[in-house]
Amino acid sequence: MITVQKAKHIILESTQDFGIEEIPFLKSAGRVLKEDIVADRDFPPFNRVAMDGIAINHPFFEQGLRNFKIEGIQAAGSPQQTLDNAANCYEVMTGAVLPNNCDTVIRYEDVEINTQVATITVDETKEGQNIHRKGSDKSKGTVLIKKNTIISAAEIGVLATVGKATVKVTKQPKVMIVSTGNELVGVNENPLDHQIRRSNVYTLVSLLNDLKIPAKTAHITDEKSVLKEKIESYLKEYDVLLFSGAVSKGKFDFLPEVLDELGVQKLFHRVLQRPGKPFWAGATKGCNVFAFPGNPVSTFVNCMVYFYPWYYKSVGVQQETQTAILAEDITFKPNLTCFMQVKLSLENGHIYATPIQGNGSGDLASLVEADGFIELPKTEEIGFKKGNVFPVLTYRSF
Amino acid sequence: MITVQKAKHIILESTQDFGIEEIPFLKSAGRVLKEDIVADRDFPPFNRVAMDGIAINHPFFEQGLRNFKIEGIQAAGSPQQTLDNAANCYEVMTGAVLPNNCDTVIRYEDVEINTQVATITVDETKEGQNIHRKGSDKSKGTVLIKKNTIISAAEIGVLATVGKATVKVTKQPKVMIVSTGNELVGVNENPLDHQIRRSNVYTLVSLLNDLKIPAKTAHITDEKSVLKEKIESYLKEYDVLLFSGAVSKGKFDFLPEVLDELGVQKLFHRVLQRPGKPFWAGATKGCNVFAFPGNPVSTFVNCMVYFYPWYYKSVGVQQETQTAILAEDITFKPNLTCFMQVKLSLENGHIYATPIQGNGSGDLASLVEADGFIELPKTEEIGFKKGNVFPVLTYRSF
Repeated sequence: MITVQKAKHIILESTQDFGIEEIPFLKSAGRVLKEDIVADRDFPPFNRVAMDGIAINHPFFEQGLRNFKIEGIQAAGSPQQTLDNAANCYEVMTGAVLPNNCDTVIRYEDVEINTQVATITVDETKEGQNIHRKGSDKSKGTVLIKKNTIISAAEIGVLATVGKATVKVTKQPKVMIVSTGNELVGVNENPLDHQIRRSNVYTLVSLLNDLKIPAKTAHITDEKSVLKEKIESYLKEYDVLLFSGAVSKGKFDFLPEVLDELGVQKLFHRVLQRPGKPFWAGATKGCNVFAFPGNPVSTFVNCMVYFYPWYYKSVGVQQETQTAILAEDITFKPNLTCFMQVKLSLENGHIYATPIQGNGSGDLASLVEADGFIELPKTEEIGFKKGNVFPVLTYRSF
Repeated sequence: MITVQKAKHIILESTQDFGIEEIPFLKSAGRVLKEDIVADRDFPPFNRVAMDGIAINHPFFEQGLRNFKIEGIQAAGSPQQTLDNAANCYEVMTGAVLPNNCDTVIRYEDVEINTQVATITVDETKEGQNIHRKGSDKSKGTVLIKKNTIISAAEIGVLATVGKATVKVTKQPKVMIVSTGNELVGVNENPLDHQIRRSNVYTLVSLLNDLKIPAKTAHITDEKSVLKEKIESYLKEYDVLLFSGAVSKGKFDFLPEVLDELGVQKLFHRVLQRPGKPFWAGATKGCNVFAFPGNPVSTFVNCMVYFYPWYYKSVGVQQETQTAILAEDITFKPNLTCFMQVKLSLENGHIYATPIQGNGSGDLASLVEADGFIELPKTEEIGFKKGNVFPVLTYRSF
């Protein structure tokens, strides 16, 4: 058996390149950008009026002039006007081009207007004020968004502004999620006494949707020949296969054997962790196989511990390690890495993790009470002290 | 002008009930649950074998018996078998029903099997071990997920397990996002020197998509009659109208006037904040109007400060205030609430906020460099000290 660190390391050595596709910018939120986005013009593209008011020539104000005859209105969206007489003014609107021959904007709050004459009512004004200078945010050619950025609402706005109606992002992997186990029936069915409904595949679908990865699902009964036939075709068709179940020591846990027979190279089987120990990982040239143990908490945590960072590295995203402060003492001696379910709370800029008393890896319902997992290392101590900081993985946003 | 606190308070007094709809459970991630989800059976629904191995009667082990004749195999998904001779054993698989007349499971690691006889190779076993007891997680009738929960992958798994193929969630509001301003052209167009492309509506679409709210967009030119006609029909058709622009003091800022003429009750206009001061809010009986100032940063921050909490309160979700620790001294004297752009970083369970030097509310590109906004209160001091804690709003997930 290998450690979690070693297992992660091996998985991250086995990433894929899913390629690039070009999609409508408005559908790109949550996706990973695969081109630098460059300013197509200066930002702003002209000396932009930043307040509604009048535009003047400041030297006249300095010389004591307070009454400015209004020559016209410069509206946003109109071509640039020109102030003919430098001692006059133009009414100007936010977002408009500053008229020629003007250098300063006085906001309406500091002006009185009577019969086409604007009187400035303040004694202090600064030359150049209330003008958003051409190129002052960014000059043409500047990289506004770097390749490999995960696109958020902020990036969507910039993409629109520079006219990127379509944008290059990573293709998402083609993923098939397979459940095994004869005890499983569909969500719509009424299980017999010895049966339960399928749930892990849907949890995985949802965890992948959080990364904007669409996934298909299938169920295969515990018959070796059927398993082999189906998986053989999936290996050709998909970039990633996620399994839940059939990797432990049971009589019908055919999966490692079948994958071996199909030429999938085993990366490792079984990791020094709880829950999720019987995890099997492998790969062919074109397909990565994550065969998670069938207990719901095991499947859940292993998807976050292994698949998530594998995906992020594959698409070129540097993932920050999130950490939290243990809110309670924990007294037990883990002889392996423990992913403990925790409730996270935010207080004064601190993230606290309070352990949730689940009932083991089969306790699906306990996941609802938690927000994530805290990663407690293998240790010789008898437990972990309140106040210590550990990595956390969370499946809720805050 | 009113304070941010007062403005928020007024907005939150004006929430709506969007009603309830029933949707396929797998499409419910991110939506707000509107029914309690109850365990339809005990969890687990039977005494469930938790390890692959053999099931025995523990008293025989206690009396010194180590060799157990194997009567058969209890597979997962098979009806419950019965051990005929209490001194024998059954091979049992994880997920299977514990056979009748057995009370303890010994894992394969602690057993040697030869010609249908299993020999237990350890001296310590605990009666009842490796059995996930019927109802030990949750008993039938227990509420597993409370109404008003935002559905995550964890809830998706539970919904599947209890057979909720469809689930009741809040209907999302019907939202129309309208830009105004003659300077704006489409994303696909090449703007003239005095024009820029529309971007705020798309930023808003994306911010609303983060809440799983679909939204439509429209652009109206700065003509009062057109504005009035269009808005009149939108007010009838939509639950929410979001505007960007035309709420300040400009000659073509017709929006407040038009909304008034159409019978929209003004809640307030202008808030003591920077950016986003000229924000206009109003409501009819069936429609809430958020008219944000047209500068990109103003629109962005006001959507998060006002629309987000209004939506969450409308759908019954209690939103936690997120906070962060200021990572640098800030020396200025804000005479109003300041929403400063910050880059957030996580370190040892602490969230730090580092101010980003943007170039004012028109600087769309600066949003890309930041992760959110820190809310600095109106104060008489000359600034804010590093280490102090303030509320933050973030538009990226960590």
